[in-house]
Amino acid sequence: MTEPEDIRAGVQESLEQVTALLHKHELVENLVHRQEGPRQELVETLVHKLHLVELQKLLDKLHPADVANILEALPVEQRLIVWDLVRAERDGDILLEVSDAVRETLIAHMDEHELVAATGQLDTDEIADLAPDLPREVILDVFKSLPVEEREQLRSAMSYPEDSVGALMDFDVISVRDDVTVEVVLRYLRRFEEMPDHTDQLFVVDREEHLKGLLPTNRLLIADPETLVESVMVRELVDFHPDEKAQDAALAFERYDLVSAPVVDGAGRLIGRVTVNAVVDFIREATDSDMLSAGGLREDEDLFASVWKSVKNRWAWLAINLVTAFIASRVIGVFEDSIASIVALAALMPIIAGIGGNSGNQTITMIVRALALGQITTTSARKLFAKEIGVSALNGLIWGSVVGLFAFLIYHSWQLGVVMTSAMVLNLLLAAVMGVTIPLLMQKLGRDPAVGASVMITAITDSGGFFIFLGLATVFLV
Amino acid sequence: MTEPEDIRAGVQESLEQVTALLHKHELVENLVHRQEGPRQELVETLVHKLHLVELQKLLDKLHPADVANILEALPVEQRLIVWDLVRAERDGDILLEVSDAVRETLIAHMDEHELVAATGQLDTDEIADLAPDLPREVILDVFKSLPVEEREQLRSAMSYPEDSVGALMDFDVISVRDDVTVEVVLRYLRRFEEMPDHTDQLFVVDREEHLKGLLPTNRLLIADPETLVESVMVRELVDFHPDEKAQDAALAFERYDLVSAPVVDGAGRLIGRVTVNAVVDFIREATDSDMLSAGGLREDEDLFASVWKSVKNRWAWLAINLVTAFIASRVIGVFEDSIASIVALAALMPIIAGIGGNSGNQTITMIVRALALGQITTTSARKLFAKEIGVSALNGLIWGSVVGLFAFLIYHSWQLGVVMTSAMVLNLLLAAVMGVTIPLLMQKLGRDPAVGASVMITAITDSGGFFIFLGLATVFLV
Repeated sequence: MTEPEDIRAGVQESLEQVTALLHKHELVENLVHRQEGPRQELVETLVHKLHLVELQKLLDKLHPADVANILEALPVEQRLIVWDLVRAERDGDILLEVSDAVRETLIAHMDEHELVAATGQLDTDEIADLAPDLPREVILDVFKSLPVEEREQLRSAMSYPEDSVGALMDFDVISVRDDVTVEVVLRYLRRFEEMPDHTDQLFVVDREEHLKGLLPTNRLLIADPETLVESVMVRELVDFHPDEKAQDAALAFERYDLVSAPVVDGAGRLIGRVTVNAVVDFIREATDSDMLSAGGLREDEDLFASVWKSVKNRWAWLAINLVTAFIASRVIGVFEDSIASIVALAALMPIIAGIGGNSGNQTITMIVRALALGQITTTSARKLFAKEIGVSALNGLIWGSVVGLFAFLIYHSWQLGVVMTSAMVLNLLLAAVMGVTIPLLMQKLGRDPAVGASVMITAITDSGGFFIFLGLATVFLV
Repeated sequence: MTEPEDIRAGVQESLEQVTALLHKHELVENLVHRQEGPRQELVETLVHKLHLVELQKLLDKLHPADVANILEALPVEQRLIVWDLVRAERDGDILLEVSDAVRETLIAHMDEHELVAATGQLDTDEIADLAPDLPREVILDVFKSLPVEEREQLRSAMSYPEDSVGALMDFDVISVRDDVTVEVVLRYLRRFEEMPDHTDQLFVVDREEHLKGLLPTNRLLIADPETLVESVMVRELVDFHPDEKAQDAALAFERYDLVSAPVVDGAGRLIGRVTVNAVVDFIREATDSDMLSAGGLREDEDLFASVWKSVKNRWAWLAINLVTAFIASRVIGVFEDSIASIVALAALMPIIAGIGGNSGNQTITMIVRALALGQITTTSARKLFAKEIGVSALNGLIWGSVVGLFAFLIYHSWQLGVVMTSAMVLNLLLAAVMGVTIPLLMQKLGRDPAVGASVMITAITDSGGFFIFLGLATVFLV
């Protein structure tokens, strides 16, 4: 009795196994270098090879996506040892799965011949995905080796920007006519050795390739073979244009629970399809890059990138932050006389700035999310303003009283407490107004409100908070 | 010639249309209230009804997911008008699609009878999804109305925690035996009027429901009808247990490009399946909640929640921030004498703290991401430490020199500049060490490193930065 076999690798475990084998391999290698006798060397070389053979066996069993994950998790030197052990026919699939930064290190290690071989096995839409990272000669070589139709596909696939539907599209479409019977379609399908992955439906087209409808494979299975395609096909469908935003396609897949969807040109002619696996990858990459940029990283970073590369990946945000910090510092500088006369102000001012930033980011997070879902209209924007101002006023009174009390308890000055409370209320109101305004304005100017809004609000509530607090203190206390 | 029809609604446009109709409706309603003559009233009522009828027609055309999105985008009062216009038979599907916060407002508006009717139309796994928000009596009523087998399903579906595979699972499985021919399977399928959504494969089981393999429907289409299921089925597969983490299932769907996958119990018996649409929804919700908590919101907030509800949703993070701000404030307080003698310190100290927090967050973002992908081993952790310390040292020297120069130019003291530079280097080193340590430690303690790590690092680099800078200044300058 054969049991079904789970192809999932415990990635963490495989990684530990790979690391252990690499470690053994390295130990032996060190021995070999130290001992010079020729017989000794032979034995060691055999043992040494043994580990690599074992490692290769392990790699062969793993799915390309899991090998990719292990490559990402290894320091560059070990990564390249493992990469050399991967069978050449799997190179292409694995290159597709690794992150951009790691792909760069792998490609740099391959010669032109290997790259052409690895790329040649891929589908045209996959070649297009790799193309930006490949040397020009490799692309030309691969291009020349393709049949004419695929050359055309590659050319068009490479022409779409990264965040468009065209970049997600593949060309593995099976299309049929609407005036044939189900029987004919079934006979046609039986000539396939294998159907493309994620084929949940065939595309019904006319003689000029205009899309007429969809024929779900599950309908084929239960339909009477005598009926015409026309009468079983689905006419209400979701189709995309290659220049639509990938983000919109992702939303549609999510909302309408799609597995695949046709892509048509301006004249309604079928040119390809998008499948849910491409969409899932896109969603993951998009949220990844949101996370990275929220964390202040320009792009995906190789875990084991050189120090210099990492510094380059991170300098932009640090520089921006430095500029906003300088501005805040000069705002404080204006009030140095006040601070000199009441030094408690220096200790208290970061509280006002910090809580303002926190509250502003809460507002921004809400608004950016609603904008991404297309949920904000002109009328509702006004209501949102009112609500956020209300929330800030209430929060300002609550937390402002707490900090006012704190200031009073520590510095025994009720005037200082009142200034703290007022400054907190005002800074939270500033945070609310800017927290709604900034993303709406960015959207209006055609920019992505998710990028940079948080840095901006923090800059404003920092400098604004210092100004409000020190300003009030100067007027009423000094 | 009929053209295919795109079911996608331009959500933003539909929302504007709905808002416009609601606006007309309200205008008329105001008129009705003002004018009292009975004839006038009749006319107005008709006009008024007209808008609602038009609105209802618009809603009927929209997909439940789009109606859900519109409901989320409307202020509560208008939301309820629209909700009343939605046909009762669609209530259940729409309740499944709206966010938790908005679902609460809709359910509060429905009576027990309506809720039972809405819920009764759903599949058992869907009822389980709604159950936490439903009054107990409604669940009992629905439960009693179900056939015995489905009661069992509902009971088991409700027993799994929210972030487990069990919560993603549905029961729409078609299973077949391995000792029948493809012909028999095809005949069996033809008895279905419609196959469940996302049926890309049938599940092959033995008499005791033990999973033996998978039979992709696409293989059914091209297989010779005479062959046995046994010889066309796939034995290498991915299966899940209901108590596995949903996150792991999501990773597997992403890596292995799955459309559906079987869920089996401890004895290998088939109990349900997970489909890619449930996984996509899960991914979206998980990243959403990551984003919300990164922004300082406890959970998904109704855009038009009352001020009081919003304050409750946001207070926790503000309180935590307040505590860390108080600590930082006390650290500064310790050095008040130094600040009193060199007031420039007050203006310069936020720069050190701010850049430290920025750099620490960069490190944490990298490490948290690598941990989520299972990419960190004991050996690589050491290398990561070394790398992050290198990056921080280099960044510290570069940006430290910039801020040192800034301090010198403004305050004409080279000693102050040197203290700035040194404090920057030290605070960035602190940020690097803690940025690696905090997430690794949280992971070791079995906590989610994505939650709270950023707040912790900021707290440390704030207080630490103030301490380092003011400490150095006190020792060398005062």
